[in-house]
Amino acid sequence: MPPPSAAPVVILVEPQLAENIGMTARAMANFGLSELRLVAPKNGWPKKGVREAASGATHVLDGAAIYATVPEAIADLHRVLATTARERGQMKRVFAPDEAMADVGARAGQRVGILFGRERVGLTNEEVSLADAIITFPVSPDFPSLNLAQAVLLVGYEWRRTAGLARLPFTGEMLSPPATREALLSLFASLEEALDDAGFYPPEKRDVIARNMRDMLHRMAMTEQDVRTFRGALRTLRRKRGDPAAS
Amino acid sequence: MPPPSAAPVVILVEPQLAENIGMTARAMANFGLSELRLVAPKNGWPKKGVREAASGATHVLDGAAIYATVPEAIADLHRVLATTARERGQMKRVFAPDEAMADVGARAGQRVGILFGRERVGLTNEEVSLADAIITFPVSPDFPSLNLAQAVLLVGYEWRRTAGLARLPFTGEMLSPPATREALLSLFASLEEALDDAGFYPPEKRDVIARNMRDMLHRMAMTEQDVRTFRGALRTLRRKRGDPAAS
Repeated sequence: MPPPSAAPVVILVEPQLAENIGMTARAMANFGLSELRLVAPKNGWPKKGVREAASGATHVLDGAAIYATVPEAIADLHRVLATTARERGQMKRVFAPDEAMADVGARAGQRVGILFGRERVGLTNEEVSLADAIITFPVSPDFPSLNLAQAVLLVGYEWRRTAGLARLPFTGEMLSPPATREALLSLFASLEEALDDAGFYPPEKRDVIARNMRDMLHRMAMTEQDVRTFRGALRTLRRKRGDPAAS
Repeated sequence: MPPPSAAPVVILVEPQLAENIGMTARAMANFGLSELRLVAPKNGWPKKGVREAASGATHVLDGAAIYATVPEAIADLHRVLATTARERGQMKRVFAPDEAMADVGARAGQRVGILFGRERVGLTNEEVSLADAIITFPVSPDFPSLNLAQAVLLVGYEWRRTAGLARLPFTGEMLSPPATREALLSLFASLEEALDDAGFYPPEKRDVIARNMRDMLHRMAMTEQDVRTFRGALRTLRRKRGDPAAS
């Protein structure tokens, strides 16, 4: 198993709104990205309100490096991808986020950066030409404009997913093993006896209905505990109804 | 090919911040979701600032339906998934967003809803128990708290992707077909002749260097136009250098 490649560097080019930069830091932290570079942030840096917008991901902001130009910001990297929503009229390979991040994962030991453009106008064609390839997002053509921090989130999500790091924080493990068929068939018998006694089935449809109810219980994929719970509920209902056969 | 299932309904339970609701509408529009339901929005509805935060996705806001309770909001649906970050101590199947949305795609003709909880405390255990299953996000355990609109974005992105609708707005089609091997080999010859004449190669390494340079050109995956451009640049450089062999 080759060593994992480093997480991509997120590079914001002339970002303007404190809220977007803060939300970018948060999105990065959510998916395990930590290296942020800002190229010539508009209206100064640091910005008022950016720490609040980062909602606790201030370590990403504190580690952010500031550069004057894109060439300086990408100098030490081995591969750069540029995010754009619009076709740029230049020869350029284009990847979806999942393809691009799977490719990053294959580049063990290489430093990869992703360029994100200005809120209103994105990246210039010149800046795009400095990147190896383009990432574009599979958005609805009716509403293609993604918020900056949302674009960063998607890239981070796909990186983590394609790097095999996308473990769920918890899984839906059954707390009890599946019931044996003996327990389940015994439950069928108890249920059908109770319903027979209660006069539930129309006589001409008795077997069909009983079998369809068995299918309901099959679909539950009952655990041992489920069977005990269901059996207990059934018994209690019979007792309440004054059914002498209830045990 | 079965008919596509309808896009899932996004249900926000007691959402508080106008900004989150607006950004949710925008995230939905980005990935082709349009049906939004709000259960008992905190501090009233509509909210000041929500239309600005929606950045043009006001059609989603205008179509939003308001409900007093979760049972009312999910009554007409056929399947509901609840997003949670924390394990809930109840038996529940748990899906990643991509698994959950692939499953939605398989349910042609069924209406599916996704519950998103309150900004601070998420969904209650009672609300979670009303859902068929849980969706949780593969976030970094160091920073698991996803912004509400970002969670909606991920679900929308995965729905579109697993539904086979994730077409990129443009692709990197080469503007010219690949060069034939005749054109490429001819270029090799021209380049090597020019470099021979210019005394570029150290004599003992001439063939090794020439072959490695051929590999550089192979890696370019040159199109017909690329070969013409490269050949023209080479010719111009030779002419400028006063090379009588340049043609």
